Amino acid sequence: MYNAKAYSAASATAPLASDTIERRDPTEHDVQIEILFCGICHSDLHSVRNEWSDFMSTNYPIVPGHEIVGRVTQVGSAVTKYKPGDLAAVGCLVDSDGTCPNCKAGLENFCPNQILTFNSPDKHLGGVTYGGYSDSIVVDERFVLRVPSNLDLAGVAPLLCAGITTYSPMRHWGVTEGKKVGIVGLGGLGHMGVKFARAFGAHVVVFTTSPDKTEDALRLGANEVVVSRNADEMQKHAGSFDFILDTVSAKHDINAYLNLLRLDGNLTLVGASPIPLDVSAFSLIMARRNLSGSNIGGIPETQEMLDFCGEHNITADVEVIPIQKVNQAYDRLLKSDVKYRFCIDMASLKSA
Amino acid sequence: MYNAKAYSAASATAPLASDTIERRDPTEHDVQIEILFCGICHSDLHSVRNEWSDFMSTNYPIVPGHEIVGRVTQVGSAVTKYKPGDLAAVGCLVDSDGTCPNCKAGLENFCPNQILTFNSPDKHLGGVTYGGYSDSIVVDERFVLRVPSNLDLAGVAPLLCAGITTYSPMRHWGVTEGKKVGIVGLGGLGHMGVKFARAFGAHVVVFTTSPDKTEDALRLGANEVVVSRNADEMQKHAGSFDFILDTVSAKHDINAYLNLLRLDGNLTLVGASPIPLDVSAFSLIMARRNLSGSNIGGIPETQEMLDFCGEHNITADVEVIPIQKVNQAYDRLLKSDVKYRFCIDMASLKSA
Repeated sequence: MYNAKAYSAASATAPLASDTIERRDPTEHDVQIEILFCGICHSDLHSVRNEWSDFMSTNYPIVPGHEIVGRVTQVGSAVTKYKPGDLAAVGCLVDSDGTCPNCKAGLENFCPNQILTFNSPDKHLGGVTYGGYSDSIVVDERFVLRVPSNLDLAGVAPLLCAGITTYSPMRHWGVTEGKKVGIVGLGGLGHMGVKFARAFGAHVVVFTTSPDKTEDALRLGANEVVVSRNADEMQKHAGSFDFILDTVSAKHDINAYLNLLRLDGNLTLVGASPIPLDVSAFSLIMARRNLSGSNIGGIPETQEMLDFCGEHNITADVEVIPIQKVNQAYDRLLKSDVKYRFCIDMASLKSA
Repeated sequence: MYNAKAYSAASATAPLASDTIERRDPTEHDVQIEILFCGICHSDLHSVRNEWSDFMSTNYPIVPGHEIVGRVTQVGSAVTKYKPGDLAAVGCLVDSDGTCPNCKAGLENFCPNQILTFNSPDKHLGGVTYGGYSDSIVVDERFVLRVPSNLDLAGVAPLLCAGITTYSPMRHWGVTEGKKVGIVGLGGLGHMGVKFARAFGAHVVVFTTSPDKTEDALRLGANEVVVSRNADEMQKHAGSFDFILDTVSAKHDINAYLNLLRLDGNLTLVGASPIPLDVSAFSLIMARRNLSGSNIGGIPETQEMLDFCGEHNITADVEVIPIQKVNQAYDRLLKSDVKYRFCIDMASLKSA
């Protein structure tokens, strides 16, 4: 074991503050990574404040962060894919059983015994796993990703959650050239959805409640922007979409979007409203439409996504902050006051 | 034009009563059919009582009925597939534009210009189309189906709606041998769903609120019966279903069933609750589950379904009634007091 610097929260109401945590010494299959950047995902905030307690209670202290990019500092004797000095990344998962049908299919994200990067049982040290708001992490090489060398590292970090969460369902549902794709909500997830859908060759329509986001949506790659409060504008697109990615995590009128799908069209939820959505059976029946959900992605697909980003020069739009500003960043996140993802420059932790 | 005997309703509150209607003389592409049996679908009742007025108002008088089996009495000069004396059937559709992409794909059920068997604009005679509660009907040969000669005709009639409505989504979503399939609700649709799922080789589980339906569900082909009010019994099946067909047309707890689906599993609604369903985003996201809808089926697939029924000796379980008892049958339908479909013996109309 060794000590690592971190930022942790001691309770649901405490601010994040400087702390020292223990990390394991790398075992033979482990990769030790010096963390350079860590993105701030909305689920960090939900977990810190124990807002998902019905689903998964938070253990304190919590060190959040699952959008991790860094440099390899040490590897175990059996590690074959990484060596000290390599760039490396870690996303939402640090372990899984490796033996279930989902793991065997490369869908570790659906493994019933998956270990999340933070707030999951830590089988090595006991207690729970600690995430990326830290200067160092040790992870089994199976859950370490290669990072293309041509990308801005701060912009890479959010790919590990916001990126794969939007990339995976579009691949799964066949978003390709010639398809008409809608993106609902233009935040951390939505702005990545726009970039990927455009890179896949689709015709991309952004739905937003804020007309003042139009210019930025077009800059990110949208072909069209629809203000969703304008019923006439919505009606023009009725029955025309092959796929809609819905990133909104609050309750909203899902039928308004379902009715925009063509025959056999699919709307996938990646934002999880805590309040159930009202779904009209007629919306689904009348055009054999599909409402689905998707949850991050497996390790092989996460690597595929990073490689795709390298080839297409795709990164997240980030506002880089020192870790000392993380609590203010959380406050701003609640007001959607970020374009489009906060990313912590972990060099700031050296002086914490 | 010629006169045909029929039963019609004069208003949303009037009972069905004996009437005389006009049918067109067969044009060159038409088939004239003497109707022998017509099933009673719940949508007959909804339409007669104008209960779907938000969606499609009823024009009076209405002659309902879209589960039609009979014998060809006359054909137009260009008709190639039928000759007088042949058995023939007509389902929910009697026309479509024939030129849209859906029609070209054999999905006339999703044609934007489809003409329903009753209460749709009649381009030949003006007014609206009249359905199968009649002694005769004239239909374009494209919308006439062949009937296998080995089946009981009264049990064939409900295949034209209840049959194809359940057959089509199971084919679309790949219900085959080795799949675990749930059927929610054991009525006109549900009992056909059980028969088809079993015939496709699936392991069939019927969900019912009434424990006293268990024996009958097993007789129809279910491998297991789960009383849906028993949470423990439901929990045993969590995450295990490939496909669930939901035939319930009232609001119900859809998440209880979504949670029974395995990774990538699909729940298809064929019952249309008029009240939106509360759908938990988590139910969908956590296993990439899908909630879909399905609406009857296209003409080629309806023929495929009838041929399949001929090969596997499948018919609906019917209670045959004379047309003079149709109003009592509607009252009983509202109490689900039928196993499992009323079917009108149209010979009774001769004495009406």
